[in-house]
Amino acid sequence: MPYVKVEIAKGIATVEQKRAVIRGMTEVLVKELGRNPEYIFVVIDEIDTDNWGRKGQSLTELWQAANRDAAVAPATETD
Amino acid sequence: MPYVKVEIAKGIATVEQKRAVIRGMTEVLVKELGRNPEYIFVVIDEIDTDNWGRKGQSLTELWQAANRDAAVAPATETD
Amino acid sequence: MPYVKVEIAKGIATVEQKRAVIRGMTEVLVKELGRNPEYIFVVIDEIDTDNWGRKGQSLTELWQAANRDAAVAPATETD
Amino acid sequence: MPYVKVEIAKGIATVEQKRAVIRGMTEVLVKELGRNPEYIFVVIDEIDTDNWGRKGQSLTELWQAANRDAAVAPATETD
Amino acid sequence: MPYVKVEIAKGIATVEQKRAVIRGMTEVLVKELGRNPEYIFVVIDEIDTDNWGRKGQSLTELWQAANRDAAVAPATETD
Amino acid sequence: MPYVKVEIAKGIATVEQKRAVIRGMTEVLVKELGRNPEYIFVVIDEIDTDNWGRKGQSLTELWQAANRDAAVAPATETD
Repeated sequence: MPYVKVEIAKGIATVEQKRAVIRGMTEVLVKELGRNPEYIFVVIDEIDTDNWGRKGQSLTELWQAANRDAAVAPATETD
Repeated sequence: MPYVKVEIAKGIATVEQKRAVIRGMTEVLVKELGRNPEYIFVVIDEIDTDNWGRKGQSLTELWQAANRDAAVAPATETD
Repeated sequence: MPYVKVEIAKGIATVEQKRAVIRGMTEVLVKELGRNPEYIFVVIDEIDTDNWGRKGQSLTELWQAANRDAAVAPATETD
Repeated sequence: MPYVKVEIAKGIATVEQKRAVIRGMTEVLVKELGRNPEYIFVVIDEIDTDNWGRKGQSLTELWQAANRDAAVAPATETD
Repeated sequence: MPYVKVEIAKGIATVEQKRAVIRGMTEVLVKELGRNPEYIFVVIDEIDTDNWGRKGQSLTELWQAANRDAAVAPATETD
Repeated sequence: MPYVKVEIAKGIATVEQKRAVIRGMTEVLVKELGRNPEYIFVVIDEIDTDNWGRKGQSLTELWQAANRDAAVAPATETD
């Protein structure tokens, strides 16, 4: 009966990548907790970058700042 | 003050059906728990079938397989 | 595949009442949306009254105020 | 490490207003709980008014009723 | 910035198993989506078996029925 | 009708601090979005530090490591 909700930014994953996430998350619960995959749900929620915030700024703002910095030196820490 | 979140697959419910779900969920909480409907919230979240997984596969994949099986014999167990 | 999360205040429902909520919520989704109960999940989350707020006050505070008012006249609107 | 999910009706907030909500929620957690903003997430979920219910009716229905009433007298209590 | 919420039944996982779930879920998001683990949150919510329902029954009821069946023949499909 | 869910680590907030969070979050939605506080819900979920992960480790592990480092030099970045 496990249920998994995965929130990611919109636009970072293809349909194939989302299938890989569903498969991978399910395998973790089968391997580590011995759950029956028949009743393992995984739901992916893709969040608009205007609707996701960290340290008080939207992801849209954080990524714009990271891109500006990357023009000078390679980004090391991005969300 | 109850709050209810209902996650369903996108495309399976009309506006009228969603109103019936909101009404029905609210009635359950009034009847079984004696809650005041004034403060009962019901939120429906419609999930893309590429974003919903069960037993390690997306609903898109599960429904395609169910449709293939249904061409041979009627489906008995679908999500 | 529907998934339902129900948040209620801690202490307002017995085990029997919670079973009635699980049964009732499931029936709404079967009746209104034709879903297969095999894959309908209902999760009840019981929230401490110190951790639930409405109009800027915790439920603990709101219920204390409602009880004070009820000593004068019967409460008409409680959470 | 706090995580905040904010559910609002779709269409009531501009990009600028959503940034103000992200900033404001983050400041509350820094000021009241002394959390490090580096690891404070805020996610805004904008819900279609057909998918949000209160007292057994969708917000679409509640707002239509409130608008009808407002033609006669100013609304005092809207969601 | 991904955020993962994992809901499991209370009592099925040790502290070590929960660490393995946190590690495994994080690795899936790093491997499949290239996310930075610095900002990957995983939250595990352990649900009382009286508060989790499937096909209209609580997990407490479903597991009791599965145990009765298992006295006759080995269970093949449990939550 | 906004609904806010706040997830924090268990043990970091007193009852008074939780009331301040409920009040502060409500004020942000009134000030920035003009919502009616009558229908603003705030729910605080306190997560056991064994159940919260970041960068693949539980908060229990992260805080132990931070405390070890703090014995040598003051911590600058904690969750």
